[in-house]
Amino acid sequence: MFRPEIKVFDCTIRDGGLINKHNFGFDFVRAVYKSLSKAGADYIELGYKNSRKLFSSKEYGPWKFCDDEDIKRVTDGIESKSKISVMVDVGRVDMEEVKPASESPVDMVRVASYVKDIDKAIFLANDFADKGYETTINIMAISRDQGPELDEALRQIQAESKVIAVYIVDSFGALYQEQVEYLVKKYQTYLKGKEVGFHGHNNQQLAFGNTIEAIIHNANFLDGTVYGIGRAAGNCPLELLIGFLKNPKFNIRPVLDLISKEFIPLREKIEWGYIIPYAIAGMTNQHPKAAMALRNSDAKENYKAFYESLVDLEMD
Amino acid sequence: MFRPEIKVFDCTIRDGGLINKHNFGFDFVRAVYKSLSKAGADYIELGYKNSRKLFSSKEYGPWKFCDDEDIKRVTDGIESKSKISVMVDVGRVDMEEVKPASESPVDMVRVASYVKDIDKAIFLANDFADKGYETTINIMAISRDQGPELDEALRQIQAESKVIAVYIVDSFGALYQEQVEYLVKKYQTYLKGKEVGFHGHNNQQLAFGNTIEAIIHNANFLDGTVYGIGRAAGNCPLELLIGFLKNPKFNIRPVLDLISKEFIPLREKIEWGYIIPYAIAGMTNQHPKAAMALRNSDAKENYKAFYESLVDLEMD
Repeated sequence: MFRPEIKVFDCTIRDGGLINKHNFGFDFVRAVYKSLSKAGADYIELGYKNSRKLFSSKEYGPWKFCDDEDIKRVTDGIESKSKISVMVDVGRVDMEEVKPASESPVDMVRVASYVKDIDKAIFLANDFADKGYETTINIMAISRDQGPELDEALRQIQAESKVIAVYIVDSFGALYQEQVEYLVKKYQTYLKGKEVGFHGHNNQQLAFGNTIEAIIHNANFLDGTVYGIGRAAGNCPLELLIGFLKNPKFNIRPVLDLISKEFIPLREKIEWGYIIPYAIAGMTNQHPKAAMALRNSDAKENYKAFYESLVDLEMD
Repeated sequence: MFRPEIKVFDCTIRDGGLINKHNFGFDFVRAVYKSLSKAGADYIELGYKNSRKLFSSKEYGPWKFCDDEDIKRVTDGIESKSKISVMVDVGRVDMEEVKPASESPVDMVRVASYVKDIDKAIFLANDFADKGYETTINIMAISRDQGPELDEALRQIQAESKVIAVYIVDSFGALYQEQVEYLVKKYQTYLKGKEVGFHGHNNQQLAFGNTIEAIIHNANFLDGTVYGIGRAAGNCPLELLIGFLKNPKFNIRPVLDLISKEFIPLREKIEWGYIIPYAIAGMTNQHPKAAMALRNSDAKENYKAFYESLVDLEMD
């Protein structure tokens, strides 16, 4: 699939940080940034831009806050054409602390939002756009929010926001490819001059397949993470995405090397990937939090009872 | 996806047996058979029907041969509506040893064949059909054999064979969903009154997504294995397939329980699944044997060099 408009958007450190309270070491993040720059990733997302007034700097690592100085520490001196991204949540960022883009190493700010908060998301994204940042809005939990509110949200984003792309975020890993096709086409009916993005979760081993489906229907902003790292079941493995795309600007070798050297040892220490409770959460279209709690309990392998607890919940 | 024609075809013991020389214990196979019967699998494949004259009974376990007595030992006394299948390879079965279907616990015989051997496969399948067995032909390594020979093979199967289904077997885990669509449609242009089957390999985490793609285009024989067990990267996880299908005759609970009790411990002892060298073999459309050799060597995590060895091989 060669299409020059396609942007490979790495969010290894950002989504991976949800497993370890954003506590990746500086050397590790520098190695990731260097390898992904060599691989030709268009964007590299390093974490969240949260206010230190709202979250404890002791409890969370640097990538919960993404101070410009910390970003420079892992990027300075590395040759790179990749843009740097951070994610923000509505209500968790202090705009007073945000410098203009011209004074920051950050190029892109992605606003994560549920459909119900879309007004605030547009406002926040525009604030960043006014400071000179590229912006996107990433609509989370979309497998639950496909009603007319979604149409209204898309209409409003088109009319009122300055974002360059709007994402389908399959937070629950619940979408099958027919639904991805439906959603990409729905987005396209509202968005003119803005790209469609896709961020999959791998609960049902469909993050990569669904990303291909999104590509087929002309989504151009494509999220992935090295070795699929990310909360719970993780994300679309970036190595597979790069292996699929035929644009010669991408190079899989540095990613393979990075997995050998950093991610195989890391996976021994923290857990993500295809694990049955996350698959169950995906197929029942639910947030992974119950499955994550199960994985931290003595009943971690008791799948049948967990399934029944979720299905019964649905019937309440 | 509710379509009564869909057949869920479990090949856990057969494809899983390729990892351990078909040496699953009788209690284990009995547990699998019992759980899959409860789950509503339409077919359960227990192994290969090879002649004991050709393979050593000391080197290989019972599921390399599938003697009727061994099959009865794991199925007798278990309530089941599932049919029992065995697989055969051209040139490895002694028809003299095969009883009529009416005297055997086996219902279905699947003939695995490359395109080049299709004459022999048809002959062999018809021999089994004449003895009263249901039969299929499973065309292997199809990502390499998509030229006019495939068209000719399909034409011949339609004209000369008595099989009820013909499979697309993505032996190398190399297919993406657009190719699955293309192949299912090609099969359908030649096959009338015969079903299309799909057997995925999970090198690129696409076995399940590609199976859904095959379903969308009306393939009805769908292979899966419990927890995706199978040689190298393994297969489409049966639990995901059952979770996707909406036909109430399927029940995921016994499969979840089986994974908890048998497959989590087993995975500690033998390796299969998403492992980078298998992903590399898939994306370069090659047999997994080089990757399997790598996994048994000291260089097992040396992915970049392995990738380069395969890519250079391609350029030879």
